[in-house]
Amino acid sequence: LYFHETVYNGTNAADATSAIVAAPQGANLTILAPQNYFGNIVIFNDLITLDNNIHSKPVGRTQGFYLYDTKDTITAWFGFSFILNSTDYQGSINFIGPNPVFVKTRDISVVGGSGDFFMHRGVATLRTDGFEGKYFFGLRVDIKFYECW
Amino acid sequence: LYFHETVYNGTNAADATSAIVAAPQGANLTILAPQNYFGNIVIFNDLITLDNNIHSKPVGRTQGFYLYDTKDTITAWFGFSFILNSTDYQGSINFIGPNPVFVKTRDISVVGGSGDFFMHRGVATLRTDGFEGKYFFGLRVDIKFYECW
Amino acid sequence: LYFHETVYNGTNAADATSAIVAAPQGANLTILAPQNYFGNIVIFNDLITLDNNIHSKPVGRTQGFYLYDTKDTITAWFGFSFILNSTDYQGSINFIGPNPVFVKTRDISVVGGSGDFFMHRGVATLRTDGFEGKYFFGLRVDIKFYECW
Repeated sequence: LYFHETVYNGTNAADATSAIVAAPQGANLTILAPQNYFGNIVIFNDLITLDNNIHSKPVGRTQGFYLYDTKDTITAWFGFSFILNSTDYQGSINFIGPNPVFVKTRDISVVGGSGDFFMHRGVATLRTDGFEGKYFFGLRVDIKFYECW
Repeated sequence: LYFHETVYNGTNAADATSAIVAAPQGANLTILAPQNYFGNIVIFNDLITLDNNIHSKPVGRTQGFYLYDTKDTITAWFGFSFILNSTDYQGSINFIGPNPVFVKTRDISVVGGSGDFFMHRGVATLRTDGFEGKYFFGLRVDIKFYECW
Repeated sequence: LYFHETVYNGTNAADATSAIVAAPQGANLTILAPQNYFGNIVIFNDLITLDNNIHSKPVGRTQGFYLYDTKDTITAWFGFSFILNSTDYQGSINFIGPNPVFVKTRDISVVGGSGDFFMHRGVATLRTDGFEGKYFFGLRVDIKFYECW
């Protein structure tokens, strides 16, 4: 009952697949909020690839949201799903948890899934895999399932 | 440890029980966003009935949010709870997961609950049960619990 | 496999650590929405203390969001994490669930965690622990873990 998968996920807050949809008083929806983005909610829909090359063949998409929740540093809170659609895996995996982006590795919860990931639980370890400015970054996501069916 | 319940849930994005509360740049809060609603967050509070007649006696309410997260088709991501208050069931059930609305059946995660649904986990299968225009739709939710206490 | 912790959590919607970031049509981001705050989303980042004195030594922070989802009374839906950083506990705990604030005690789900709370599941019982006006309130959170690793 141990499963290990390495998925690279290129997330780009400025490209066509994500958008700032909420901001605190005094901020707007085209520029990340002034106090370490505190108060922004971003909806995203990004390709998932098996390596850190955003041009590799995608194996699925990741869909959901994150919000920035600290004023004096950058931390986020994620709620999202992987929708995998490859020859190896079919199904969805659902995640929630905190992402303090300046910590080297940070763990969020895998709370369930469907298809190949039916009723799975586990932990997903996030690592920043490069960024360009504040509107583009890549995330490496290592998923370990500890409960399967 | 197997439990099966069929609940019909009438959700209506235009009635008095839901509201668009966030939208991407260029959209507003009274019209769903132009690219397949991408970037909208909707907060809802709908009656739950046991059949698909919205006028049937309600057994509870469903409360939470969904967001639209794809530009070239309609997909949503849900976080919500059922608050059941009937002679048969008392308690809450908490759900998260993706809802690609044009797929015939789609599974989201039951991640916990309270009262009669204390510590339950399972899968909820969503089916569209009719819609009128883009501001009204009904959802059929079949819940199977695989872990109970 | 039974764990009991009492954490007091002072949450203040008007202080510098939380903000209204979404509101329905006709409302704004500096005043809670007119119909029992229906349609507001609030992002928060609050200190956690072991007793109900907000000036006690903090043991961590709680980060995430809640939204108000009823028009004729006040109910909220929470998604958040505790980030504990004390000599006794290190790690995060992830929560989701409904918070009908006028019910004396209400249970939400602990769906996972990291560090000392790796793969934990359980129930968190919320109690209102005093409020001042509608922009300040304290929450008492009692956490019981029923699944640990």
